[in-house]
Amino acid sequence: MRIAQVAPLTEAVPPKLYGGTERVVHWLTEELVTLGHDVTLFASGDSQTSAKLDATWPKALRLDGSVRDPNALHMVMLERVRQKADDDEFDFLHFHLDYYPWSAFSRQPTPYVTTLHGRLDLPEHQPVFNTFSKIPVISISNAQRRPVPQAHWVRTIHHGLPENLLTPQPVKPSYLAVLGRIAPEKGVDRAIKIATRCGIPLKIAAKVDRADQEYYDELIKPLISGNPLVEFIGEITDREKPDFLSGALGLLVPIDWPEPFGLVMIEAMACGTPVIAYNRGSVPEIIEEGLTGFIVEDEISAVSSVGRLETLNRGAIRKQFETRFTARRMALDYLAAYRSLMESKPRFQLVASAE
Amino acid sequence: MRIAQVAPLTEAVPPKLYGGTERVVHWLTEELVTLGHDVTLFASGDSQTSAKLDATWPKALRLDGSVRDPNALHMVMLERVRQKADDDEFDFLHFHLDYYPWSAFSRQPTPYVTTLHGRLDLPEHQPVFNTFSKIPVISISNAQRRPVPQAHWVRTIHHGLPENLLTPQPVKPSYLAVLGRIAPEKGVDRAIKIATRCGIPLKIAAKVDRADQEYYDELIKPLISGNPLVEFIGEITDREKPDFLSGALGLLVPIDWPEPFGLVMIEAMACGTPVIAYNRGSVPEIIEEGLTGFIVEDEISAVSSVGRLETLNRGAIRKQFETRFTARRMALDYLAAYRSLMESKPRFQLVASAE
Repeated sequence: MRIAQVAPLTEAVPPKLYGGTERVVHWLTEELVTLGHDVTLFASGDSQTSAKLDATWPKALRLDGSVRDPNALHMVMLERVRQKADDDEFDFLHFHLDYYPWSAFSRQPTPYVTTLHGRLDLPEHQPVFNTFSKIPVISISNAQRRPVPQAHWVRTIHHGLPENLLTPQPVKPSYLAVLGRIAPEKGVDRAIKIATRCGIPLKIAAKVDRADQEYYDELIKPLISGNPLVEFIGEITDREKPDFLSGALGLLVPIDWPEPFGLVMIEAMACGTPVIAYNRGSVPEIIEEGLTGFIVEDEISAVSSVGRLETLNRGAIRKQFETRFTARRMALDYLAAYRSLMESKPRFQLVASAE
Repeated sequence: MRIAQVAPLTEAVPPKLYGGTERVVHWLTEELVTLGHDVTLFASGDSQTSAKLDATWPKALRLDGSVRDPNALHMVMLERVRQKADDDEFDFLHFHLDYYPWSAFSRQPTPYVTTLHGRLDLPEHQPVFNTFSKIPVISISNAQRRPVPQAHWVRTIHHGLPENLLTPQPVKPSYLAVLGRIAPEKGVDRAIKIATRCGIPLKIAAKVDRADQEYYDELIKPLISGNPLVEFIGEITDREKPDFLSGALGLLVPIDWPEPFGLVMIEAMACGTPVIAYNRGSVPEIIEEGLTGFIVEDEISAVSSVGRLETLNRGAIRKQFETRFTARRMALDYLAAYRSLMESKPRFQLVASAE
């Protein structure tokens, strides 16, 4: 199948550092190529891919200080996709750019779908999904759909990781872990309180975005400095994650927002590490209570769950990852969605039109 | 003619306070209605218009703290325009939304044009105009076109004001004036130095955006406080402008950026007030040297021009405004552009298509 994958230009595919959407697009693209498909990846020029790369701009925009208006380049990229679609170069188009393609691509014959990667509960989402209620969209969790039932949901496809990207390491687990980004919605303050009440060391491997520096300095740093149990080790790479996660008794995910998916939970599972997560957004779909972790509602039940972490079987957690959250499973789910949309949308012949 | 005017949702049409694009759209829309056309204005719901208002969102987005992603609502608005265009409700579409409509609207039969309201010399403008080189666009000055000669320029149409919005008042001019916004590119520091060297009072009627508060506090405020010649009077309304401008010996426009148009210059002319402006962007197209003001290159020649302000005839300046910069002239220019684009674009019949 000739497939276009259209990624944001914000980060490279895969991202050099932190970054969810472009990382998932990378894993999906690589699997589709492995499965024998002819994939064109529309992305920034510093992307690495086994597919054909169509680069709209040489450098990922978050690292390119020269560009003031990233929307302009996304519109240029979409026009490149549209021109190639007009020339019938693709059997299927897969967008990862929210609502940007919808007005233009709803009026062209190549079948297409958009995976929504973010939260959908902001006031502006109502008119968006009212207006574009016929556009096929894929959710990354069922929870993500809740605020906009009027959208044309095709199916939910959970993210997946390459099976052997992160594997369990032979180290003795000895601490609680936080992995990701320091921001109010990630609840790192809660993680510190939980670990402190348990008297167990906490290691925080997290990025601090410029936008969150003040939050870190004023609210998180005072909780860390002088706390002998807490160690802040900063941002880590995929290479460092297996040791970091395998060494953890459990990963704390004390989120305070409607998490659309939460890649970090399946990264932990890939290493056999159980997860203690607050019951928000996608959490109950990802974590199997008492098998891969515990779902909690507050600090008290989080603390008591920590005491039960050792009852979980790390081999069984890894097995669950292999069954439910590999990139191969994700790619096969997407291929099934592509095929079903290709069948449901008869491709008209353009006989005569103003286009 | 059935005309769609598509404004940004950022400010109301007209803006409650400062704001260029939506103000021009307002004047143009009112004139087109006066001239007997059937105009639909796509804008925020707090807009005031004699046209039919199609409101995508109740409140201008800059004042609506609930909306995080203004692009989403602009895409919704464009889809509303597109659906009405598909239903053949308009003879002509006039966009004021940069590149946003181009991919979708280049593939539909209703003739359309986009007025570009901003600077076009950023790095991302090159791929935008390379990719969309067939899209008809209107410049608001010839200078604005320079960085992107590859665009499909239809014509330059200078902005215009309603003829009697601002008129000369019988007050004795006694100070130099600055009107607009305090920001690095507006060069208010230069204006203060010029007035101080001339020993003439300077009145600054200007808005300070939140983004520019630090610039104001650190660089401009120290030049004002303790300077007996300089008075900062803050943002003023259109109602206050005739007295403010008529009382000025001259308006200082010491800009330090490629000004695409500069409404403030024609506001001064409407009151018969001469302008001293730095030779950047549109300035030599708007100011007639020795008639409506002086074009200068640096502080020295600005200071010497102040001494020659009284040689200019304020009645002649007002006459030039009436000849060149009324909203009526602007509307007639736009109608001519619409008609020429309607003639050059044969409207195909959609016989059979995938759309």
